[in-house]
Amino acid sequence: MNQIEFFKNRIESTFSPMDYMQASKQNPDEYVLLDVRNGPPHLKKEKINGAVEIPQVELENHLSEIPKEKIIVLYCWDVWCNTAAKAALILLENGYKVKELSGGIAAWKTMNFPTTLLTSPNLPTEQCEC
Amino acid sequence: MNQIEFFKNRIESTFSPMDYMQASKQNPDEYVLLDVRNGPPHLKKEKINGAVEIPQVELENHLSEIPKEKIIVLYCWDVWCNTAAKAALILLENGYKVKELSGGIAAWKTMNFPTTLLTSPNLPTEQCEC
Amino acid sequence: MNQIEFFKNRIESTFSPMDYMQASKQNPDEYVLLDVRNGPPHLKKEKINGAVEIPQVELENHLSEIPKEKIIVLYCWDVWCNTAAKAALILLENGYKVKELSGGIAAWKTMNFPTTLLTSPNLPTEQCEC
Repeated sequence: MNQIEFFKNRIESTFSPMDYMQASKQNPDEYVLLDVRNGPPHLKKEKINGAVEIPQVELENHLSEIPKEKIIVLYCWDVWCNTAAKAALILLENGYKVKELSGGIAAWKTMNFPTTLLTSPNLPTEQCEC
Repeated sequence: MNQIEFFKNRIESTFSPMDYMQASKQNPDEYVLLDVRNGPPHLKKEKINGAVEIPQVELENHLSEIPKEKIIVLYCWDVWCNTAAKAALILLENGYKVKELSGGIAAWKTMNFPTTLLTSPNLPTEQCEC
Repeated sequence: MNQIEFFKNRIESTFSPMDYMQASKQNPDEYVLLDVRNGPPHLKKEKINGAVEIPQVELENHLSEIPKEKIIVLYCWDVWCNTAAKAALILLENGYKVKELSGGIAAWKTMNFPTTLLTSPNLPTEQCEC
């Protein structure tokens, strides 16, 4: 592989937070943002605004919910997690178009881009009497 | 691609901050450090010591200023930005020798390596009466 | 290279901190964790629990100490260092099985995974009279 391929591959398969922000503002209907982090909501604490949550370990059971005509933008925790890469493989092998959001939610927060607090399903606040 | 190629490609196309520091001390005339971050100076705040500033979006108009015989070391914000990779593609396709500085200016600062404060062209301090 | 290869290569050659933690708990005898950071102990300060320390610059002189039947998991400082990649090349070219621990000791500490303090050989505390 030459150097041109090295950089082309990365640009083809990943979005920086800034590039995804710009692309999704210009073409909001072209992308689905997918949070594939595994683990319970109280560890995740928050998600990127507008993200659909399907943990990577459950992804193969939820393929029918994911549109094939859109670009699926996958993220996990940080630049060193492989969960989004594993999810990307599952989707690519099933004919989806994907990109990984580089740096995950950690990079997104470094940019001060908007997130949404997650409430734990184990804490039924709606039924709380207090 | 086998694993040897995986690691070789990365080493061929990138410098860690430490490796660039050592290489440029040994052969200061062999490298040009190029800051390709887009965006205004007040957001950039500082640059790596000795870096030439050409934003990636303006790079194709400034190719004549970049020496072909040297190795152009490109950096952007952080490990998850793709701006240096896009600049690398432009330069490689025009026959330049390039490496990306891994981790951008963020990694450089983590190492406590020297940076220079940037003054905004919108704030003409030299003409300031105060 | 297509996108499937891009993500497969990364998953094949790297472990996230979480994935290594899980894999080494399930099969503790299958892995050797190798700290290949160069530099003196007072800079390293601590290492990942259970790691064997062989600096990358000395690795070729210590190959006989490294078992060929195990998977050697290599780490350096952070996601942007290339020292583990250089060590991976040396080991792969000598017939070892390797993976890089993504993000190095910095990512490991972000996860609050266990580390061990290093004592400097330059400070002979055992012989200290105080």
